Amino acid sequence: MSNDPEILNAEINRLRLQLESHEAKSNSKGISIGDYLLTRLVQLGSMFGVPGDFNLGFLDLVEDHPRIDWVGNCNELNAAYAADGYARIKEGSLGVVTTTFGVGELSAINGIAGAFSEMVPVLHIVGVPSTAQQKKKPVLHHTLGDGRYDAYGKAAAQFSVYNAEILDKVNAAHQIDRAITICITQARPVYLTLPTDMVLQEVSSERLNIPLSNEPQINPPLKEEFVLQTIHERVQEADGDVVVIVDACVIRHGVRDEVQDFLGETGFPVYATPMGKTAINENYKRYGGIYIGSLTSPAIKDKVENAKLIISIGSLATDFNTGNFSYKIPTHRHIELHSTYTQVQYARFDDVGMKQLLPKLTRKLSFFSSTASKIEVPLFVKPVPNEESPTITHSWFWPRVGSFFKPKDIIVTETGTANFGILDVPLPEDTLLVNQILWGSIGWSVGSCLGVALAAQTIGRDRVILFVGDGSLQLTVQEISTMIKKGLKPIIFVLNNKGYSIEKFIHGKHRRYNDISQWNWKSILGTLNDNNQFETASYTTANKSELDALLENPSFASASKIQLVEVLMEALDAPYTLQKQVENASSVYARPV
Amino acid sequence: MSNDPEILNAEINRLRLQLESHEAKSNSKGISIGDYLLTRLVQLGSMFGVPGDFNLGFLDLVEDHPRIDWVGNCNELNAAYAADGYARIKEGSLGVVTTTFGVGELSAINGIAGAFSEMVPVLHIVGVPSTAQQKKKPVLHHTLGDGRYDAYGKAAAQFSVYNAEILDKVNAAHQIDRAITICITQARPVYLTLPTDMVLQEVSSERLNIPLSNEPQINPPLKEEFVLQTIHERVQEADGDVVVIVDACVIRHGVRDEVQDFLGETGFPVYATPMGKTAINENYKRYGGIYIGSLTSPAIKDKVENAKLIISIGSLATDFNTGNFSYKIPTHRHIELHSTYTQVQYARFDDVGMKQLLPKLTRKLSFFSSTASKIEVPLFVKPVPNEESPTITHSWFWPRVGSFFKPKDIIVTETGTANFGILDVPLPEDTLLVNQILWGSIGWSVGSCLGVALAAQTIGRDRVILFVGDGSLQLTVQEISTMIKKGLKPIIFVLNNKGYSIEKFIHGKHRRYNDISQWNWKSILGTLNDNNQFETASYTTANKSELDALLENPSFASASKIQLVEVLMEALDAPYTLQKQVENASSVYARPV
Repeated sequence: MSNDPEILNAEINRLRLQLESHEAKSNSKGISIGDYLLTRLVQLGSMFGVPGDFNLGFLDLVEDHPRIDWVGNCNELNAAYAADGYARIKEGSLGVVTTTFGVGELSAINGIAGAFSEMVPVLHIVGVPSTAQQKKKPVLHHTLGDGRYDAYGKAAAQFSVYNAEILDKVNAAHQIDRAITICITQARPVYLTLPTDMVLQEVSSERLNIPLSNEPQINPPLKEEFVLQTIHERVQEADGDVVVIVDACVIRHGVRDEVQDFLGETGFPVYATPMGKTAINENYKRYGGIYIGSLTSPAIKDKVENAKLIISIGSLATDFNTGNFSYKIPTHRHIELHSTYTQVQYARFDDVGMKQLLPKLTRKLSFFSSTASKIEVPLFVKPVPNEESPTITHSWFWPRVGSFFKPKDIIVTETGTANFGILDVPLPEDTLLVNQILWGSIGWSVGSCLGVALAAQTIGRDRVILFVGDGSLQLTVQEISTMIKKGLKPIIFVLNNKGYSIEKFIHGKHRRYNDISQWNWKSILGTLNDNNQFETASYTTANKSELDALLENPSFASASKIQLVEVLMEALDAPYTLQKQVENASSVYARPV
Repeated sequence: MSNDPEILNAEINRLRLQLESHEAKSNSKGISIGDYLLTRLVQLGSMFGVPGDFNLGFLDLVEDHPRIDWVGNCNELNAAYAADGYARIKEGSLGVVTTTFGVGELSAINGIAGAFSEMVPVLHIVGVPSTAQQKKKPVLHHTLGDGRYDAYGKAAAQFSVYNAEILDKVNAAHQIDRAITICITQARPVYLTLPTDMVLQEVSSERLNIPLSNEPQINPPLKEEFVLQTIHERVQEADGDVVVIVDACVIRHGVRDEVQDFLGETGFPVYATPMGKTAINENYKRYGGIYIGSLTSPAIKDKVENAKLIISIGSLATDFNTGNFSYKIPTHRHIELHSTYTQVQYARFDDVGMKQLLPKLTRKLSFFSSTASKIEVPLFVKPVPNEESPTITHSWFWPRVGSFFKPKDIIVTETGTANFGILDVPLPEDTLLVNQILWGSIGWSVGSCLGVALAAQTIGRDRVILFVGDGSLQLTVQEISTMIKKGLKPIIFVLNNKGYSIEKFIHGKHRRYNDISQWNWKSILGTLNDNNQFETASYTTANKSELDALLENPSFASASKIQLVEVLMEALDAPYTLQKQVENASSVYARPV
């Protein structure tokens, strides 16, 4: 049995809530369903979305709520991206996007699917027609004209772990609690429909006295003990020659602290995958850099693949996260810790999750620290190369901005060159890197950056730095206006390489379809500035010395206003890792023969 | 039996294609599947979309095709909107949007759902992983991480009349033909997945010798004759006191000419619904204006509702198209002609479609022209009111721009104030009005305008005029850049009323959530201008005399470059019809009590 009071209390609350659902309500103290929902979300801070006919009544409550900030996005896809970015930073909480029936919710669906794929807890609240209209099914605007009121929910179900429907006063509180709990504990989107006539219906507020339990369920004790013992034996057989690889789900399932303890106590060397970068501090002395299968630099590759035992924590084996599935780690030398199961060599142990397993594993394996700490770890550095040409190249750019970063920065990188360029750059202590390597929806980083920047304020982070290509930025550019409106001050590096460079490297290097319209990037902040009431600054850097000068400028680095830096680059330049990743990509993705 | 050779030939081709699918292919002349598809689409002109890993190989063929123009949109939702606008103008053809697996297609889904709802033939071609990858289901980027490769297709199926999957060489040509035929004849979206490895596979080109038959299937002859006879009897009983109402599906199902003949030969008075506006020329002498239930002006309302018999052609009874379902037309005085059935009073006749029925009905009912032509029709006019205040009001603005319109203009109106404001304005001969009253997705008009403007070029229309609110424009603004890039020259009126005015009238008049960030609209064309290589002009009109002067300026009216006019209006002004429409809307939509 667990003896962690936090876990035990969470379990007690979960059971009490289940019990409460079966018992009659006293109804003595009333609260509207809309406010019940907001009370449950109160630690949230910001809510994203766009108003629409069927959510306006609920938005009254949101606007009147003293502790929830309605952001008001330019469109729903961007709002979903923002909720995703927000959730990635506010650990243990969730992101919320509120849209309207049909037109609004469907615009958001790609953002929701991305959160599903990448395991980000986003609650999608959809204002829908009244329960009476849902029964009668008139041809209202925003319907398909054929009475299929359930079509949107069916589509949403493909990208949610739970569809919660508020149908009446009796099921409302239970549905809301279930929606939020599932969203957070499974770290995946939940879809919640709120009919217009339910918003102000009163329910008992007594249930609110029981906090929601966001802890995962307790691991089965005997099975967990067996797993601990098994892992201990494997480590013993390996003489403590263990390497740890941290991956995306360390971040998504909130086990950063547990992992840090585990590494500190055991002394095992640790590497990160692209999606796991900054899961642990990159200046940690036992950290060796990024492992990405066959694309890994040889020094790191040897160290990882030659260890007698590899423990992967929170791994997510996607193509771009593994160098096209090129890990050279045989199953009999591999242990994987996941959020809901543990895999030891060929054996899978369901329901043994890492959140509770890790502290016990730490105690069990700390014994090996003296041998483990003798394993050599390569130094993770990336010096700025000396290049004669004044042109800003990727090989120069990424190490150069690397030295611009400061502890506690939050860095958001867009799918494309930025996602790959950042990999080789060691990031300072307490830096957070936010990317979307699995889903890879271009334009995501802009909406996400908005959410990240709002969440950053709540955890005392001063600088948010976005790297986005010109092609990607065109998809979602309007959301910069929301950043301005909210007084946010990100630094936005626009890598202007005149088109979709990552696509050019995959296929169609000289194809016109990979080119885009050339915008006047220096004027965009002015155009989107809310009645010119905010201070903004825009720069174009055409060569290394211009960028150098800007990065050295303390006023620029202080990030005291929103700033956009257009970085002129060659169309057919790309980070080395990207070039290697897509070497055979044309045949894999675009045009197999 | 039909004796129209066009219809009969179409039927023969349809049967020959069906037969061909069952017979062995000689494979003597080969063509790639990608090129087969493009050959079938060759009368198309423009293809919309965004490149992505899984469609690049197909885009090679598109780019190399001498007669298909790849537009290259800023994002997929806008591309879908553009394909929708394009299809609305190119009658008998379709709009095509090409996206990539997952991230791309899901971004487009709201645009596709809108085309479904509004009955617009949009073919959605999605580049998907190879057939081998679809069997093995690796965790590629753009997947959900759980191997559910069919999730996107399941979502798409909610908003398509057909999901066509290219699985192999054997089914490819048949699937492509079926996809296109269903799309056009049903005037609704079809979803077509094209795996990367199928693009260059060779199939026989012989099938291409048989043209696709886009005519609807032949009405059952005896049943059709019975319907004709029944309608004739009803008209006789009504002593020829008949009123015709034309609606959306006259436009969508391509029966404008048939309806014009019918009206000309019978002399029946005709009115249009909001969605049927410009289905027939508004300067036609027997046309009386817009019928919209209880919101109709009394003179028109009396004429329509007191006729002994009302024939609705192509009706679409949605809330905003019928004054909240307030028609006062009893079923026993009502006949409805639809694309696939006919309703005479209480009797429904399936499979008797209007396309073939109308010419026969014209012959049958022309006898009544002498009595019908005596029925008085109110003159449809809307003079510009004399208002003392210099402020640009909706009551003044719409009649004023009404006199700016010229024959053959195409006018696109956004959901919101524009959709309602335009209703009362009589439009000149051969004007086309494009709106999205049923689906009502704000931002649609901007993408749609791009498609409309490209299609307009192919049918000799010089001026495309867009009316869009500032709130709506923010959702999809980037697509103006594609208009510029393609050298299009729409006139874009931005009704700047500082927020979502239609929502304010529905609910939350003074709510902050209905306000938006104030952009510098005059600078937007400059910001989005492709390397400043195009001529643009932007104006702000703050009062009536400024707008008057601009509209009188022949250079402005000549539309020789892309022009944007910011029209400053009061936040709480709205067209009369909108105000009446939403009088009780708060209780209907936002906050029922």
